[in-house]
Amino acid sequence: MTAPLHESPNGSGRALPDTQRGMRRRNLARVMHAVSAEGPLSRAAVASRIGLTRAAVSTLVDELIRWGLLEELGPERPGRVGRPGSALAVSGRGPAGIGAEVGVDHLAVCAVDLRGEVRARAVRHGPNRGRAPEPVLAELTTLVRRVVGAAEREGLWPAGLAVAVPGLIARDARTVVRAPNLDWHDADLGALLPTGLPLTVDNEANFGALAELWLGDGTPPDFLHVSAEIGIGAAVVVDGQLLRGTRGFAGELGHVPVWPDGPPCVCGGRGCLEQYAGEEAVLRAAGLEPGEDLVGLLAQRADEGDKEVRKALREAGTALGIALTGAVNLLDPESVVLGGALAGLSPWLLPSLASELADRTAGPSCPVSVSEFGPQGPLLGAAHSVVRAVLDDPASVAERG
Amino acid sequence: MTAPLHESPNGSGRALPDTQRGMRRRNLARVMHAVSAEGPLSRAAVASRIGLTRAAVSTLVDELIRWGLLEELGPERPGRVGRPGSALAVSGRGPAGIGAEVGVDHLAVCAVDLRGEVRARAVRHGPNRGRAPEPVLAELTTLVRRVVGAAEREGLWPAGLAVAVPGLIARDARTVVRAPNLDWHDADLGALLPTGLPLTVDNEANFGALAELWLGDGTPPDFLHVSAEIGIGAAVVVDGQLLRGTRGFAGELGHVPVWPDGPPCVCGGRGCLEQYAGEEAVLRAAGLEPGEDLVGLLAQRADEGDKEVRKALREAGTALGIALTGAVNLLDPESVVLGGALAGLSPWLLPSLASELADRTAGPSCPVSVSEFGPQGPLLGAAHSVVRAVLDDPASVAERG
Repeated sequence: MTAPLHESPNGSGRALPDTQRGMRRRNLARVMHAVSAEGPLSRAAVASRIGLTRAAVSTLVDELIRWGLLEELGPERPGRVGRPGSALAVSGRGPAGIGAEVGVDHLAVCAVDLRGEVRARAVRHGPNRGRAPEPVLAELTTLVRRVVGAAEREGLWPAGLAVAVPGLIARDARTVVRAPNLDWHDADLGALLPTGLPLTVDNEANFGALAELWLGDGTPPDFLHVSAEIGIGAAVVVDGQLLRGTRGFAGELGHVPVWPDGPPCVCGGRGCLEQYAGEEAVLRAAGLEPGEDLVGLLAQRADEGDKEVRKALREAGTALGIALTGAVNLLDPESVVLGGALAGLSPWLLPSLASELADRTAGPSCPVSVSEFGPQGPLLGAAHSVVRAVLDDPASVAERG
Repeated sequence: MTAPLHESPNGSGRALPDTQRGMRRRNLARVMHAVSAEGPLSRAAVASRIGLTRAAVSTLVDELIRWGLLEELGPERPGRVGRPGSALAVSGRGPAGIGAEVGVDHLAVCAVDLRGEVRARAVRHGPNRGRAPEPVLAELTTLVRRVVGAAEREGLWPAGLAVAVPGLIARDARTVVRAPNLDWHDADLGALLPTGLPLTVDNEANFGALAELWLGDGTPPDFLHVSAEIGIGAAVVVDGQLLRGTRGFAGELGHVPVWPDGPPCVCGGRGCLEQYAGEEAVLRAAGLEPGEDLVGLLAQRADEGDKEVRKALREAGTALGIALTGAVNLLDPESVVLGGALAGLSPWLLPSLASELADRTAGPSCPVSVSEFGPQGPLLGAAHSVVRAVLDDPASVAERG
C-alpha cells in the first residue's frame, strides 16, 4: 500500500541487534495502536493493554512524544493514590496523510491527521479524459501544495502522498500502466508529481475498499468492493488484505463478460460489464447525453419516475448481478459493497442486482450493501493509507524527520 | 489444510518458555526442510544452510532421528580432515501421508512417504453418484485400511488421512456441505471414516492445485487451477496459499454464468459453465450416452476425427475461455493450469479456450497450461498435504507418537 518500511541494512553476523530493533519498532507500533484505538489512556493503561512493563512503555511513549506522534493531555484522575498519570492521546499536530484522486471529471486532495480527521481539502471540477498526464498532474501538484500549506498552518506536516487513479497500476506503486477512461498509458506519476513527498499510487477501487475496511461500520475482513463510475473497478479484500494479482491488476470486474456476444469494449473483449453498467452505458441506454454530474442527472430523472432511466438502471443492476454471481462463486466473500459514484443510484440498481445474485446462487446469497463513503471512498482511503503506515511503524517518521 | 498444530496451553505470565518452544519447533522444521530439499546432507552442511551452530543442529537432528523422520546413511567423504560427518536423509520408513479421493466414478487411496514417493495404492472403479455417503465411505475405509496395512509392511506408519471430495467442504475440514454430482448434503466424514487417523477433508480442486504447487515443474505461486470432470471446480492459489473464501467455498468456477440465458443448472442458476463444459454436457452435445470412462471415449472419438465430438469439445473450450476471462480479470493470476479428467482432452479443448481468453483480454494474455498430474492431482495433493504437515512441524509427530 504505502511506502515500504526498511530496517537499516545489517551484516549477516549481527542477527540479534536486528531482532531487538525489530521488536522495539513493533512495540512502538503497539503503543500507537493502543492509544489510537482506545485513547486517551494513561501510561499504566497502555502497559496493561499491551502486556509490557510500565517502565518499558514510558520509554516508548517518551520517544513517540518527542517525534510528535503522541501528546500528553495533563494529569488524569488526581484523586487516586500514587503519582497521577498523564493521559496520552494521538497528536492532532503531528504527521498527516495526504490523499489525492485523479477522477475522470475531477481532481481532489485532502489531508488527514493521525486521529483520522480531515483537516484540509481542495477540489477542482472539470473533465480530464483525453488530456495528457502532464497538465493534469501539474494541476494536481498545485492542489497538493495548497492542501499541504493549509495543513502546515494547522501545525501538521505531510508524511506522504497517496494517489487514487481509475486504472491499472504497476506493482511499483507509481506507474499507471493503463487508464482507459483517461486515455493514459505508462505514465510515471513519480516523475510527474514533484511534491518531494513519499508517493504511493494505487487503483481507486483499492483505496475505496481500504476506506471501507478501515473506516466502515462493521465491514468484514473478506469482501468484494465494487467501485462504479464511468469505469467499473472492484477490489478483493481477503483476511483484511487487498488481493493484488501477479501484475497488480486484480479486480477488473468491469471486463468480466456478461453477455459474451454483446457490444465490443475498449478492452478488446465483447459484452463486458462496463458495456451495460458503466456510467456512460447507462446514460446511452437512458437516451441521455453525457455531461457534467452524470450521476446527479440520472438520480434526478429516476427519482422523477422517468421510465427509460429506471429501465436503464434496472438493466445495469441485472448486468452487475450476473458479473457478481461469477465473482461470488470464485471468491466466496462475506459481502459485496457497492461504492463509487454509482452508489448514489443504488435505490434503482440494487433490486435487480440483488435478485439476479440471489436467483443464480444456491443456498444463502451473499449480502450486498452500499458504501457509506460513496464517491469519497478512494480519496479517504488514500489519505488514511499514509496515516496507517505511520501507526504501523512510527519509527519510520523519526528516520525521515 | 491439515490438522492444526497446537502449542500446549500456557498461562499469560509465561511468555518466554512458549517463545523458546516455538523457536525449537521452527528450527526442527528448518532442519527437516533443508534435508528434504537438498539431502543427503551432513550435519555441518545443514548447520551452514540454516545458520545455526553445528552443536544446535546436532541436538535437533538427534531428536528427528529418534522420531524416525531422518536417518543416517553412514560416513560421508572420509578423505576430509576431521571427524567424518554422517550424511542425513529423510527417512523412507517413518510417517506416511494417506491420501484418498471420492470420485463420481471411483474411489482411490494412496500412501506417500516423507521422501514424496508413492508406496502403496488402491483403487475401486464404479459409480458413486446417488449412493448414500455411508456405504461409499465404508468402502473407502476398507481401502484406507488396505493401503495402511501395505504401508506398515514397508515400515511406514500413517501420520494422517486427507480426503479429496468433489464438493463444497465446510471450514471445519470434515463436513461435505454439498457435493451435487454425488448428491450428498451435510455429510460428516469425521463420523463416517472410522480409521482412527487425524482427518482433513478438502475440495478435490484444492488438493489438485496443491499437487501442482508442490510437485509441478516451475508452477508459479499465483495461479488458477481448473479441475474439470463431471463438475468443474477451480482453486485459486495466491502467494503459494489457497484462497478459501469466507465459508470455504471459493473456486466455484463451474457456476460462473457463461451465457446468462442458457439452460438451468443444478445450482439454481442458468447458463453456468458446467452446462457447457462439464463432462456430461460435452457428452450430450456430442450425441453420446454417459457411461464408464467417458473421457477415454471422448478422446478416442475426437482422435478418430468425429466431427460432432470435436465441435462439442471446441464449444466447451469456448465456454471455459469465457468463464476464465472473468476469473483472470478478477484475480490476475500468473497462469491457468488445466487439470482433472478433462486435462486428457486438452488437444481439442485448448485451442478455442486459449483464443477466447486472448481475444477477450487486453494486453498479454494469461498463459494456460495442462497439468502433468491430470486426474491423479487431487489424490497426490491429499497425500502430500499430510507429508507437508509433518515437514512443517516435525514435533507434532512426537506428540502423537
